[in-house]
Amino acid sequence: MIDKSQRLFSFVAGEQGPWSIQSNTAVVGESLPDAACLAVIGYTESVPESASQWSLRGVTSNERYVTRDEKTALVARQAELGRPAADRGAFIALRKNPQWWALTQDERRSIVEEQSRHIAVGMNYLPAIARRLFHCRDLPSAQPFDFLTWFEFNAADAGAFDELLGLLRGTSEWRFVEREVDLRLIRGRCA
Amino acid sequence: MIDKSQRLFSFVAGEQGPWSIQSNTAVVGESLPDAACLAVIGYTESVPESASQWSLRGVTSNERYVTRDEKTALVARQAELGRPAADRGAFIALRKNPQWWALTQDERRSIVEEQSRHIAVGMNYLPAIARRLFHCRDLPSAQPFDFLTWFEFNAADAGAFDELLGLLRGTSEWRFVEREVDLRLIRGRCA
Repeated sequence: MIDKSQRLFSFVAGEQGPWSIQSNTAVVGESLPDAACLAVIGYTESVPESASQWSLRGVTSNERYVTRDEKTALVARQAELGRPAADRGAFIALRKNPQWWALTQDERRSIVEEQSRHIAVGMNYLPAIARRLFHCRDLPSAQPFDFLTWFEFNAADAGAFDELLGLLRGTSEWRFVEREVDLRLIRGRCA
Repeated sequence: MIDKSQRLFSFVAGEQGPWSIQSNTAVVGESLPDAACLAVIGYTESVPESASQWSLRGVTSNERYVTRDEKTALVARQAELGRPAADRGAFIALRKNPQWWALTQDERRSIVEEQSRHIAVGMNYLPAIARRLFHCRDLPSAQPFDFLTWFEFNAADAGAFDELLGLLRGTSEWRFVEREVDLRLIRGRCA
C-alpha cells in the first residue's frame, strides 16, 4: 500500500503482489517486460532479480506547477488512495525529452497548464480518479523514467480514466514525452 | 573538481582535498564538525568514516524558478567554475523549513524573486561569483540539508561575496531558512 507518510517507494513487478497486471502497453518508446503482479514497497536501491521482472523507484516531492488557487481546488475535490471500492488501478511511467528539461520554469508551466490544461482537465475527473505522482529523475542511480504515476478508481470509472488519458495524450505537453508505459491493474487476483 | 557533465556529487570534509577550509560558521541552527580540507568527488552513498569528518551529497537538476528572460541574462553574464584565478570558494549548506515546502510554486516564486529579488540581486555579482546549486531533498537517503551551493571567486571579490550574502540573508526568502552552514575555502594549501 502507498502510505502517505512515506515519500520513497519501489514498484516491483513479478510473481507476487496485491495488484494483478491486466495489461502492459508501451504507448511511446520501449516497453517494460510482462509480469503477473505489481507490489508497492518501501524504497530499496536494488530488488533481488529472482524476485521480480523489473522494479522502478520514485519519490514524492513538493508541488512543481500548481498555484495556490489550483491546489485549494484540487484538495477540496481529490480522494485518497486506498478506497476499498477503488479496485482498479493504473501505473503510468513517463520520460520527457531533453528539450523539456532545458525549458525554464515559466515555459514548462505555460505548456503544462496555459497550453495543455493538464491541471484543469485532471480536475474534472476528481474525485473518481485518485492519483499520486512520484519523481525519479534526480535519484542517484540512473532511472529509465522521469515520473511514475499511480491511479486508483472504481471499475465503473475505467472509461472516464481512458478519456482523461486520451485528452492528455493529445496535448502539447505530451509532445515532450519520449517514453510512456501504461499498466492497468486490478486489486487482488494475484499471487 | 566539479565536472559539468556530471550531475551527482559528494562533498567530503576531512584530512585530504584540494580546498582548504578557512572558516566554518553555523549561520542558522546546528553546526557541521570542523575539518581541514574539502574535496568534491563523484556521488557515493557512503564515504568511509575514517576518511572524513562528514560528507554531503547533492544533484544538479532542472531550473526551478528562473524565467527564460532571466536565464538568458544569467547565461550571458555568468562564469564557469574552475577559473584558475578564482582560488577562493564557499560551500553553503541550507535547509528550508516545512512551511516553505508546503508552499505552491507561484508562492515560492513570488518569495524568491518578486519579494526577495534573489535572481536579480545575484545577477549584480556576475561574472565575479561563479556558482552551482545542488539539490539534496529528494535523495533516497535522509539528508541534513535541502541545498548545497558551491561558489568560486577571486580573493579581490571576497568582500563582494560577503555583501551578496548579507543582502540575501535579509530577504523574506531567508525567513524560511532553518539551518545554514557557511564554509569558506582556499584552493590548495591543504593535504
